[in-house]
Amino acid sequence: MRLALALAARGLGNVWPNPAVGCVLVREGRIVGRGWTQPGGRPHAERRALDQAGAEARGATAYVTLEPCSHHGKTPPCAEGLIGAEVARVVSAMTDPDPRVAGRGHAMLRAAGITVDEGLLEPEARALQAGFLSRIERGRPWIAVKLATSLDGRIALGNGESQWITSAEARARVHALRARFDAVLVGGGTARADDPLLTVRGFQPARAPVRVVASARLDLPRGRLAGSLDQAPLWLVHGPNAPREARDFWMNIGAELIEVAEEKGALQPRALVEGLAAKGLTRVFCEGGGQFAASLMRAGLVDEFIGFTAGVALGGDGRPALGPLGLERLAQAPRYRLSETQVIGGDVLHRWRRD
Amino acid sequence: MRLALALAARGLGNVWPNPAVGCVLVREGRIVGRGWTQPGGRPHAERRALDQAGAEARGATAYVTLEPCSHHGKTPPCAEGLIGAEVARVVSAMTDPDPRVAGRGHAMLRAAGITVDEGLLEPEARALQAGFLSRIERGRPWIAVKLATSLDGRIALGNGESQWITSAEARARVHALRARFDAVLVGGGTARADDPLLTVRGFQPARAPVRVVASARLDLPRGRLAGSLDQAPLWLVHGPNAPREARDFWMNIGAELIEVAEEKGALQPRALVEGLAAKGLTRVFCEGGGQFAASLMRAGLVDEFIGFTAGVALGGDGRPALGPLGLERLAQAPRYRLSETQVIGGDVLHRWRRD
Repeated sequence: MRLALALAARGLGNVWPNPAVGCVLVREGRIVGRGWTQPGGRPHAERRALDQAGAEARGATAYVTLEPCSHHGKTPPCAEGLIGAEVARVVSAMTDPDPRVAGRGHAMLRAAGITVDEGLLEPEARALQAGFLSRIERGRPWIAVKLATSLDGRIALGNGESQWITSAEARARVHALRARFDAVLVGGGTARADDPLLTVRGFQPARAPVRVVASARLDLPRGRLAGSLDQAPLWLVHGPNAPREARDFWMNIGAELIEVAEEKGALQPRALVEGLAAKGLTRVFCEGGGQFAASLMRAGLVDEFIGFTAGVALGGDGRPALGPLGLERLAQAPRYRLSETQVIGGDVLHRWRRD
Repeated sequence: MRLALALAARGLGNVWPNPAVGCVLVREGRIVGRGWTQPGGRPHAERRALDQAGAEARGATAYVTLEPCSHHGKTPPCAEGLIGAEVARVVSAMTDPDPRVAGRGHAMLRAAGITVDEGLLEPEARALQAGFLSRIERGRPWIAVKLATSLDGRIALGNGESQWITSAEARARVHALRARFDAVLVGGGTARADDPLLTVRGFQPARAPVRVVASARLDLPRGRLAGSLDQAPLWLVHGPNAPREARDFWMNIGAELIEVAEEKGALQPRALVEGLAAKGLTRVFCEGGGQFAASLMRAGLVDEFIGFTAGVALGGDGRPALGPLGLERLAQAPRYRLSETQVIGGDVLHRWRRD
C-alpha cells in the first residue's frame, strides 16, 4: 500500500477532476502490475496495473489507495476490470465518498467472490487524496497558500520590490509545486501589480495547471497574462458587475469566465472556491497577494501553508505576507500542524496543514 | 580538535569576559586530559586538562581551540603551564586576537622547544568563539535576535496578546538559549509592556545570564523585574537625561547602571553595545521588542537571528516581528546564512548568521 500511495502521488496536479489513485498487483509475493491515474484522469490506476499484469493478475492481490469505481463514466468501472481479471483479493485504503461509488465498488467485488479488506493506511490515503476528498465532501478544492517571506515575514519592501527574496532553488521548487496542484490562484491585486505568467517553467509538467485570477471587476492588465493563453488555461473569476467589454476581451482571447457572487464589493471567498470545485478543481495553490489570501483565511478556507523563509530582514515597513485577519483573541487564530521542513538553496521550506 | 571545540561549547554563556576554550591532551593515541573554560572564566581549559592528565601530559599533544594565553592575569599563563608540563606539541585552531596575547602564547611555546601548529579547524573555532572575537576585534558583543513568530511573521495580535504563539517545548528551548548567552537584552518598550523576568527557568544555568534593559529615561515598571534582583544580575542602560530619582531607585535595589549617549532622544545603538562589551559581555541574546531590534538592525549590529515559526496565522493586523528598517532597495537588505534548522514541539527553529 505504501508503494501504491507513492504511485498515486505521481498523479497529483494532473488528474483532476479525478482522484490521484495508485494500484499495485501482487501475486505470490511478486509485484506483477503497478499503475496510477494518468494525466487528465484516465486511464485509472487499476486499469493500468491490470494491463501491465495481463494474465498474471489472476489470483493476485490488488492494493488500491481508493475504492475501485463502480460506475460507467468515460471508462468502464474498475471494479468490473478487477473481477474480469479474476484477482483474488482487493485491499483498499478507503471508501470512495463520490456518491456514484460510496461503497458500491467494494460491494461489487465482494458479490463476485473477491475478498475485500478496507482501511489499510487510511490516514495516509486521506492526506494524499485530500484534494479529491475536499471536492466531493466539502464542495471546494483543497487550498494551499504559499508564503515566500523574509525572516521577519515580509513579502516585499514597502515600495513593492520583491525580486528576489528567496533563492533561485526555492523559486524552482515553487514551479515544481505548481505542477503538483490543479491550479495556481492569485487575486486581482497581484495580477495588476505583477501581471504574472503563473505558468510552470523550468520543466514540462504532465498537464499545465490552470491559472486562476480572482478579480471582481476584471480590471486586469492585458499584457503577459493575456498573451500567454497558448501556454496554459486561464480562468477568470469575476463578480456580477464585471463590465461587458472586459468579459468580451478575455473570452475572445480564450480565457474561461466564472461568475460568482459578491459581498461588500469583493468576490465572496466561499462562492469563489465552490465555483472552482464545480469546474472540477481539487487542489489549488494560492500565490497571493496578502489581502486575497487573508480573505480566504477569514472565510476558513485555507487548508495548508507552504512557507519559504529566506535569510534576509526587510523590516516592519515591508509588505506583510497576509492582510488583516481581525482576530481579537489568540485562541481564535487558526492553528496548523507542521508536515514537512526542508532546506532549499539556503532557504527553509516549511509546510503546515490543518488536520 | 573537534572534541576540543565540543568541550569549548560548554563554556558558552558562562565564561565571559573570557573566551570559551576547549583543550584535549592526547598521548600515544589516548586522551589523557580534557578541559574547558570553567564558569566565571577560570580555571582555563588548558589548566583543567593538564590537571587531569598529571604526569601523563609529558610528551603529549595539546589540542586547543585558541592560542594559549601568555600573560599573568588572575591565573598564571597557560603557555607556561603547558611548558611546565612538558607537552611535546601544541595544535591550536587560531591566534588569540587579545592584544595581551596576539601570538605571544605561540611564541613562548616555540621558544621552549614545543612544536606548534596553528589554524586547524580555524573557521569552526572562529564561529564558536565569535562572541569573544567580536568583543576583542570589534569592541562589541556578538548579538543574536530572537524572532518567535506566527507563520506570517507576527509576534502578537494587534491588541498585544502573545501568550502563546509557540509551543511549550519551543519556549523551554528559549530558556536553554538564554543560558548559552552572557546576557539577555530587551528594549524599554518590552519591559514596560511585559515587565518580564528574563531569567533562565526550568533548569539551573552554570551562571545566570545578565539581564539588560535598554531604556533612555529609565521609565520602567517597578514590579517583577525590580523584585528579582536576587535571581540574576540586572543592568540598565540609560541616557544622560535619565531622572535622578529613577537612577537612585534602581541602584538602591542592586541594579547596575550604564550611561550611554543618545541620538534623537533614543539610546545610540552602537554606544549601547560598546558599553556592554566594555563591561565584558561577549554574547548577547536580544528578545525584543520589534522596534528595539530594528534599531540594532539599522545600525548593522545584528549578527544572528534565531527564529521560531509556529503553525498559526495572525494576519497583517498583528504586530510585526521587526520595526521599520527604512530600506529603499532589496539589495541593501542584510542577508544571513542558514546555520541550523530543527523541529521543536511542532514549531520550526531556524538560525541564521552573518558570515
